[in-house]
Amino acid sequence: MFMGAVCVSGGPRQHDNWFRLPLNEGVFTVLVDVRKADCEGYPDPDSSESLESFSQLVYQDDFGQYFVNKTEIDDFPRFKFRGLLLDTSRHYLPLPAILKTLDAMSYNKFNVFHWHIVDDPSFPYQSSTFPGLSSKGAFHPSTHVYSQTDVSRVISHARLRGIRVLPEFDSPGHTQSWGKGQPGLLTSCYKGSVPSGTFGPVNPAMSSSYQFISRLFKEVASVFPDPYIHLGGDEVDFTCWKSNPEVRGFMQKMGSLTSPGFAGIVLPFSTLVQIPEETVLHIWKGSPAQIQQELSDITLAGYRVILSAPWYINHIAYGQDWTTYYNVQPLNFTGSEQQKSLVIGGEVCMWGEYVDATNLSPRLWPRASAAAERLWSDEKTTSSVTDAFPRLTDFRCRLLRRGIQAEPLFVGHCRHEYEGI
Amino acid sequence: MFMGAVCVSGGPRQHDNWFRLPLNEGVFTVLVDVRKADCEGYPDPDSSESLESFSQLVYQDDFGQYFVNKTEIDDFPRFKFRGLLLDTSRHYLPLPAILKTLDAMSYNKFNVFHWHIVDDPSFPYQSSTFPGLSSKGAFHPSTHVYSQTDVSRVISHARLRGIRVLPEFDSPGHTQSWGKGQPGLLTSCYKGSVPSGTFGPVNPAMSSSYQFISRLFKEVASVFPDPYIHLGGDEVDFTCWKSNPEVRGFMQKMGSLTSPGFAGIVLPFSTLVQIPEETVLHIWKGSPAQIQQELSDITLAGYRVILSAPWYINHIAYGQDWTTYYNVQPLNFTGSEQQKSLVIGGEVCMWGEYVDATNLSPRLWPRASAAAERLWSDEKTTSSVTDAFPRLTDFRCRLLRRGIQAEPLFVGHCRHEYEGI
Repeated sequence: MFMGAVCVSGGPRQHDNWFRLPLNEGVFTVLVDVRKADCEGYPDPDSSESLESFSQLVYQDDFGQYFVNKTEIDDFPRFKFRGLLLDTSRHYLPLPAILKTLDAMSYNKFNVFHWHIVDDPSFPYQSSTFPGLSSKGAFHPSTHVYSQTDVSRVISHARLRGIRVLPEFDSPGHTQSWGKGQPGLLTSCYKGSVPSGTFGPVNPAMSSSYQFISRLFKEVASVFPDPYIHLGGDEVDFTCWKSNPEVRGFMQKMGSLTSPGFAGIVLPFSTLVQIPEETVLHIWKGSPAQIQQELSDITLAGYRVILSAPWYINHIAYGQDWTTYYNVQPLNFTGSEQQKSLVIGGEVCMWGEYVDATNLSPRLWPRASAAAERLWSDEKTTSSVTDAFPRLTDFRCRLLRRGIQAEPLFVGHCRHEYEGI
Repeated sequence: MFMGAVCVSGGPRQHDNWFRLPLNEGVFTVLVDVRKADCEGYPDPDSSESLESFSQLVYQDDFGQYFVNKTEIDDFPRFKFRGLLLDTSRHYLPLPAILKTLDAMSYNKFNVFHWHIVDDPSFPYQSSTFPGLSSKGAFHPSTHVYSQTDVSRVISHARLRGIRVLPEFDSPGHTQSWGKGQPGLLTSCYKGSVPSGTFGPVNPAMSSSYQFISRLFKEVASVFPDPYIHLGGDEVDFTCWKSNPEVRGFMQKMGSLTSPGFAGIVLPFSTLVQIPEETVLHIWKGSPAQIQQELSDITLAGYRVILSAPWYINHIAYGQDWTTYYNVQPLNFTGSEQQKSLVIGGEVCMWGEYVDATNLSPRLWPRASAAAERLWSDEKTTSSVTDAFPRLTDFRCRLLRRGIQAEPLFVGHCRHEYEGI
């Protein structure tokens, strides 16, 4: 069984219309002829992905035997970027939970693991350049960290499943945990003319801040093979910056609130200047109307864009909320064909306020599977929630069978239930 | 370590104020002197429960050692009935998931497992008298059933943790699955003067229905040692009954819609007549105002009552919804002290529309723990959500440490995280 853009070769063993597979789903061998293989390096934004559909053709009969229907597969993704964000700062996710999520991602044809690895609450990334960041900024310096080995394992596990690992080091806001191991990095907030004792975003007035960020990002770029780094950039506390006389002076000198190097990519697009052409913009938040406007504006300016706002999957509700994720139409905005081609995909975000390894899998799956189909499949053939329901129900049982703790969509059963622990 | 009303004897090994325990939490030995022991039989509504608090006094220091503070425990429950309902009909729950829930219940001082074992979607109870009920009415006749051995294991596991098993065979509504293995049991619904092909509640006009129910309940009473059986009785489809000419004639003859033996205990209380005095009534549903009225009416009439309506814990919402479960005040209704003493407790209901073993534990815990404290502890000392938050956060880590997949309340960490699988 393969999943993701795994490299295999040979020709399928066919008997008439069906061929019987000798062993259980996990271990049989099928030889598949792959015409194009680009599997020696890491997956990148241009990797071929037309192979991922084969495994979904394996079915089980009433006697437990597995079958594959003889099929010509001509399948390819609608969007090149199909991401999933995990947040390992608000709660630490032990390595097995991340690896399991990568497995499930490949079954769902997600191809980008967006690793929101650090944030205000904790800094679990063990930096070789700045070890103090995790030894002082993680929830625990030895049990709640990702070592360089851990990071390598994640990247390697992802690579074998055709998944890119896009690291995010969100700054200059969302950096409270950074300050613990890097004194002087954060802006000291003032109350009137005296420091209040609290700290704000990274201090843009200090040249040491730039030297630090530059060295950290140099390390990150060498550890993570992906050509992109996500800079976060959201929710910067300007109030603190403005309260600090030093920063105020710096801003007046620079003539701008958004200092170079710290431009928040999710600020209203119109307020941003001088974004390099190859930057991909990411729409985190907004009402449906705001999202449509942002999509129009960004693509009109010629930038590529990723959509997350409708897929904040950490927000739960009673009942079948997967339908709202399914009904998102990323190209539903005013713009030319050329503009629409700049929407390169979307991303499901599992923010970690209320999520850790105890509830990650059942909250993600199969709710994220609904977004996955939206991002992979042609819009015309997947417009009906009614048609999708039995397909998703069946797929959820398939996930269970593969060991993914995917929750039920509604009343019913799977042949192989999750047994609990 | 004991939990629940476990029988132990001897005297604690004490050194000054603290005593050090040699091994890890799961395996050390502590001898506890129990003044009163009623541990030979099954737990019943009058079992003594003042022992259950000891385990919560065990703490771990920064070096991983476990300590028990020298303490005199004088703890007892505010309400005698502290129940939790699992629904094994809308989804089948494999035995390990039920046993694990019983473990967690004992840690949370719940003392009644309300087993909503059958309902419309499936009949997993393997009856020795009527084997066709499960062989035809379960989701699967061999993998999705509870054998007599399974039931015994549940009862025994519960008993050792001081938990009663209260079986529910909901009738005469909610019996669609019963009809599959017992042809002729259900009312044939009519469209005009002809049967519509659908079936409604148990047919009250047939004497065979009473014979069947009587034999089934006789078996249930012999299998389950608890002195109570829950009769469900909710949501009876009167439209189908009224459409059937035979049932209509029977009703006219009896002069009542609610035939004897099938009285729905959650119908508006005023519509019910001739309920035996020893019956405990259960408030399933209603707005806060309706609940208060029902509590007043039922207790004024001298009946004991259990409250579930505010604790439908299957209803999820984003954020810290445990506070709503915590803020319930079961005695907040107009009535005398005598009336209030008739509110014997409450029950958390985990209905199964969207829940199976994949998401059961993280949805239950620690959300149900909030209701558990409300039902156990004195109202005066547990009125503040702000005070409860750190206590519940700490208790949730304790549950994790004991292998219960309890989800986080908010941003943070536990020393021993759930590792995922």
